[in-house]
Order: sequence, then structure tokens, then C-alpha cells
Amino acid sequence: MSVRFDSLYDAVSSKGHVCVGLDTSIDYVPQAERQKAKNDADAVLNFNKALIDATYDVSSCFKVQIAYYEEMGLNGLYAYSETLKYIRSKGCLVIADIKRSDIADTALRYARAHFKGDFEADFVTLNPYLGMDSLEPWLKEAKEANKGAFVLMRTSNPGMRDFQYLEIDSPKKTKLYNIIGEKMSILAKENTGTKGFGIFGIVVGCTEKEEASVIRQNCPNLFFLIPGYGAQGGGASDVALLLKDGNAGVVNASRSIITAWQKEENSQNADNIFAAKAARCATIKMRDEILSAVGVFK
Amino acid sequence: MSVRFDSLYDAVSSKGHVCVGLDTSIDYVPQAERQKAKNDADAVLNFNKALIDATYDVSSCFKVQIAYYEEMGLNGLYAYSETLKYIRSKGCLVIADIKRSDIADTALRYARAHFKGDFEADFVTLNPYLGMDSLEPWLKEAKEANKGAFVLMRTSNPGMRDFQYLEIDSPKKTKLYNIIGEKMSILAKENTGTKGFGIFGIVVGCTEKEEASVIRQNCPNLFFLIPGYGAQGGGASDVALLLKDGNAGVVNASRSIITAWQKEENSQNADNIFAAKAARCATIKMRDEILSAVGVFK
Repeated sequence: MSVRFDSLYDAVSSKGHVCVGLDTSIDYVPQAERQKAKNDADAVLNFNKALIDATYDVSSCFKVQIAYYEEMGLNGLYAYSETLKYIRSKGCLVIADIKRSDIADTALRYARAHFKGDFEADFVTLNPYLGMDSLEPWLKEAKEANKGAFVLMRTSNPGMRDFQYLEIDSPKKTKLYNIIGEKMSILAKENTGTKGFGIFGIVVGCTEKEEASVIRQNCPNLFFLIPGYGAQGGGASDVALLLKDGNAGVVNASRSIITAWQKEENSQNADNIFAAKAARCATIKMRDEILSAVGVFK
Repeated sequence: MSVRFDSLYDAVSSKGHVCVGLDTSIDYVPQAERQKAKNDADAVLNFNKALIDATYDVSSCFKVQIAYYEEMGLNGLYAYSETLKYIRSKGCLVIADIKRSDIADTALRYARAHFKGDFEADFVTLNPYLGMDSLEPWLKEAKEANKGAFVLMRTSNPGMRDFQYLEIDSPKKTKLYNIIGEKMSILAKENTGTKGFGIFGIVVGCTEKEEASVIRQNCPNLFFLIPGYGAQGGGASDVALLLKDGNAGVVNASRSIITAWQKEENSQNADNIFAAKAARCATIKMRDEILSAVGVFK
């Protein structure tokens, strides 16, 4: 059986671990380009295209955070749709960061919304709080359309401790996020692709070094989407602990890549080409930091 | 201080507890109307308008489940936007059932997306798994725009037991959903409106009778959005246990109202007027069932 994570594994092997996050606020677009565009959403789309052109050969995949597009209303969702299409037209993989959560028929509608049609992506992110039955419709649709999903396990924000870290007696004492990891590992065994991964992976922040090796050990057959790199405190050595034989994980960076141009000299005269060059440099730097750390830990 | 739940309280007092759920699939629209419309989304929008016209004076509010519109892509989200606008143009309250969950700046973007602009609603539903800091941006935006939110506490699907029912030692033994209820109750005390409710309410299914009174007792200052009525097994007497002095809760029904026309004689010749009449009858029947049960329990 072939699963979508096989393709992501190959992309990591050939292009490194960076997942470029297109969480594009209009504030991140150079002023000159905003004036040329017909509206904010159009400016964001043009910016995204320039950044995709400049980074697709040095990143494993893209992650598009739908909230930034929903904020711009209908025009924003048009830009979202066109961004996904543009990434896919380049032969690249895209993760729709939607963190949806619902049950039964409603979950099925969401799965159809994001695995086909205007908002078709290769992978989505999902919130498991409603229970395992809330994931079933996604599994069904993912099998049919050869798609995948990352389920939130342990995030990288301070508030993760409110619920994800609660101690459960079930039956042995463990944290809630571990229970989610266990359930996802069991599920992954049922639909395994050629590289050993299932249809669902998990989201695991790289901010807690002491937990990283344990999580990887407990979830050997899960692909990880790893947030928290850079600004949130995670580094390449933390990432290396979450990988498996140097693969099985992609590391998201958004602002550090897409706003890299703002730290360059002459940024006041920037256009999209200028921003794209800075994004490419930032992506290559991050890719090499991680590859170097993986080398050390191999 | 005035909060959005004050308006919902008044709507319940004058029009009863029913929240009409516009989870409108194209399959629920009469065949004759589908042929007249320019596309599925347009047919859904026309159907919604007819149902809103027929039920707005016998229901407290509407709940629009965005997944059904996302499934139809960009046209679907246009229909979603127009449905919200139409409800609000009638002077009625609308809950955007979006169950969004994200952190920091991303959560802020979502809040702006759903409290203003094309997708402006009066209330939203939110998933708390990421932690209390994931709710803060919503609180901030809700205060500014006089909006409200219902946070998922205990849902009504079988899978709710997977995580929501896990036993926590924190410090006394309790279920995860109770911890969420407690945290929301504390938060509600900080921003109380004239009727005693805060900016956040909670979602509590009416399917578990034995827990209902305890939940209401533990969360006296929270407004409840109550799913699970009818098809999922909850009845008017279960609802009554979740209310407070006969108010402080709205009860959602979607399919039983919007597909009521399919059970009528001559449904093969139905149009939107036909469907709207059946929806009105179903809404009045449910409203009266609940009012009668509330009378008994008062």
C-alpha cells in the first residue's frame, strides 16, 4: 500500500526537513507590492507565489495556515485556494494547517472540503479532543484520495500544559498527550505505507528536549510535524531527537522565513523578488542547521 | 457591562430555546429548487433564506455549521457569508459553529475572521485542547466587538469518552471535561454581563442525564449550547436539567428541522415554501416540548 507520507519521506530525503509556513499577513508583504495589488488578498497571493518559486527546491513541503486567509474573508480564501494550487502545480506537497475538529457527518464534510475541490491539500492538521470517532471520516476520505493528516499531540505554546499535560490514570499514570500518541500509533499500524508510516502522523513541538526521545521511542511509526523552531525556543538538536534515522519529521518555520527580508539592508525598497531571495537564504540556513544536527545524532 | 449573552438570554425568554441548525447539505434541498439554482451553493442559500423566514420568530437563534459550506469550496463560503448576513438582517443572533483551535497570533486571526467582515457572527464555537492561552485572543476580540463564544466541554458523540472522560488527579480526581468547565467558570466571573453570564459559554450535550444537574450546579454562570437533542438521544427533560431558571441554554436541532419536509406527504413535489412550513412546525413542536419540560422542572 502507498500512503501520502511515503512522498513526504522522499521529499525530506532529497530536500531536507524544512516546511515553509505561509502564514502570510498583509504586514509581511513589501509596501511597493501592496500598492500594485488589487486588494490585500491579491498582494498576499503574489507574495506567496514569489516565495514558493524561491524555496520549493530547498524545502520538503509547505504549510498554509488558513486562519490568515479566513481573516481576509472571501477574497482571502480565494488567495488560499490559489496558493494551494500553485504549490501543487510545482509538484510539491502542501499541509493545510486547519486544526479542524468535528464529529460524524460534519467531520466528513470537512474531509471532503480539504482533500478535494477548491481547498485540496495533501495533508491537514486535526484536533483530537472530540474523540477517535471524530477522526474516522478523515481516515476514510484520506484512504480514498491518498491523503494524510497530522493530529495535534503536544503543541509548543505555554498553554499546552493546561490540558495536554494533565496526569491520567489509564491504567498507568501518564500524560494526556501520551494517550493521544498511543492511540495514533495503534491506528497507524492498520494502514502502513512502504516507508512504515500510516495515514495519520502527529504534531509534536520541539520545545521540550527532555521529552523528545521518549515521544519518538513511543511513536516509531508516526511522521511528525514539528512546530516551535526558532522564535519559540526549539533548536536543531531538539529536532534531531524527534526524527527517526534522520527522517520521519518536517520542521515548520513561518515568520523567520517569510519576514526574513525585513531584516535585510535596504528593506525599505523591497519587492517580492527581494523578499523571496531572503526567504531562500533563511530556508537554506535552517535546512543546513538541521542536517548538520542530524549528522551529529545519527 | 453588557455582553452578547444578555441578548441571547432575552431571545430565549421571548422565543424559546430552539437553536435552528443550518447544517445544510445539498441533499436537504428539494429537487425542484436545485434545478432552478445556478449552483449547489446558490440552492443552499435560497433554501436557508426560506427556512430563516419561517423560523426566526419561533427560535432563539441560528447555528450555521461551516463545514457544510467549506465542502462546497469558494461558492459554499459565499453562501455561508450570505446566510450569516441574512440572519443578522432579521435582527436575529447567529452562532458560527466553527470549532476552531489555534494559538497566539493565529487565534487572533481566526477571531477577527469570525467576529467581523464577511463571516461576522454573534457567537462562535471553540475547541480548548490547545490550552487557555488559545482562548485569550478570542476574549480580547469578543470584548471589543461585543461577541461571545461557546467552548467545547462535553460533546454528545460516542467518542467523547476517549479523552473528555479521562480521570485526572488535579488535585482531586475528576474528569477532563470538568476541568474545562471549572476553568471556563472562573474566566466568566471576570467579564459578567447584566444577566450574570460572561463572554464564554460552553457546549454540553444533553445525552447524559445523570451528569446534567451536576454540570449545571458547577457552572452556574455559564450559558450552554446544547447539542444531542432528538436523533442523538437527548430529550426535553434532559435539557431542562441543564437550564437555570428555565434559561441559560439554547438547544440545537439541525436535521430534524431542516429535513422535516422529507417526511411530509407529497414531499416529491416540495419546494422551499413547502420545506419552510415543515421546518416551522418542527421548530414550534420542539420549542413547546422544551417549554413544557421546563415548566415541570421549575
